[in-house]
Amino acid sequence: MAETETAQSRTDFLRSLRAVREFKKTAVPDDALRDILEVGRWSGSAGNQQGAEIVVIKDPKTLNTIAGLEGFVHHLAGAALGLLIVMPGQWAEGDAFDEGRLAERIMLAAAAHGLGSSIGWLTGSGREAGRRLLNVPEGRTVRTVISIGYPATAARRGIRKPLDSIVHSEKYS
Amino acid sequence: MAETETAQSRTDFLRSLRAVREFKKTAVPDDALRDILEVGRWSGSAGNQQGAEIVVIKDPKTLNTIAGLEGFVHHLAGAALGLLIVMPGQWAEGDAFDEGRLAERIMLAAAAHGLGSSIGWLTGSGREAGRRLLNVPEGRTVRTVISIGYPATAARRGIRKPLDSIVHSEKYS
Repeated sequence: MAETETAQSRTDFLRSLRAVREFKKTAVPDDALRDILEVGRWSGSAGNQQGAEIVVIKDPKTLNTIAGLEGFVHHLAGAALGLLIVMPGQWAEGDAFDEGRLAERIMLAAAAHGLGSSIGWLTGSGREAGRRLLNVPEGRTVRTVISIGYPATAARRGIRKPLDSIVHSEKYS
Repeated sequence: MAETETAQSRTDFLRSLRAVREFKKTAVPDDALRDILEVGRWSGSAGNQQGAEIVVIKDPKTLNTIAGLEGFVHHLAGAALGLLIVMPGQWAEGDAFDEGRLAERIMLAAAAHGLGSSIGWLTGSGREAGRRLLNVPEGRTVRTVISIGYPATAARRGIRKPLDSIVHSEKYS
């Protein structure tokens, strides 16, 4: 491919990511999962501290239990697998930012393999319940569980504000 | 390309992202910038609130001033441009997470165009100073400024923990 063609096909791919919350029952191949986790592993982090850890959840019973916890996590019930992100819990702002970076990479890597995904967030009592359920040490942050699976339906087209309404030149105006 | 080949080339690309903090003086073409901003525009956000805005900074004087503010922002001084992310400031945790997602997408889109980038973080007094400098309304969060430009040096190889030390199966162990 020519250079501009490669650039365009890569940014087309980046732009095409949409949340998917309805999944087929088909399992995710081990190779694809490993590849997704490798993309996660190479996520950047503040000061290269690499504090993030990932719990891979395939047991449908566990996924169902998580889906019933407090938060926006119902889509875990039908997922082929869930990836829980565990953060160190020492620096709220840095953890949340790095967790967002990692989550985005995981979703993109899943999409590269034709898999759909959605960010699930535990809130309120769901975090402590999730932490206990998955045996995560006290003090760590348990917040994001990403559901992954082959899409059961075509992703929605999505809606975004026009570019000119979110971009400013030189100064905010 | 065959399907698995496409998947592999895409995840190779995702994995290859490294921070770049030394830049050539060459300007970023307008088409590339617009394409990067379009990738940012399609970033996901909690509840699809799309609260993020971006200030494009090309003036070397402004970039130099930012580079001198409190934070990890020195690399803005040599950048061809800086992208400041402005968040609504009503929900600290959600803003930081969504900002991380957006920052990751912007860096990946820049890399697709052969551009290097690095996340810059304003800290302490640097945030208020940056907010005033760029005319951002009070109450909004001014934290991340991404430096972008053609790499002056080859990106470092990078170091990451082995996969097995960050991934757990079914439960944290």
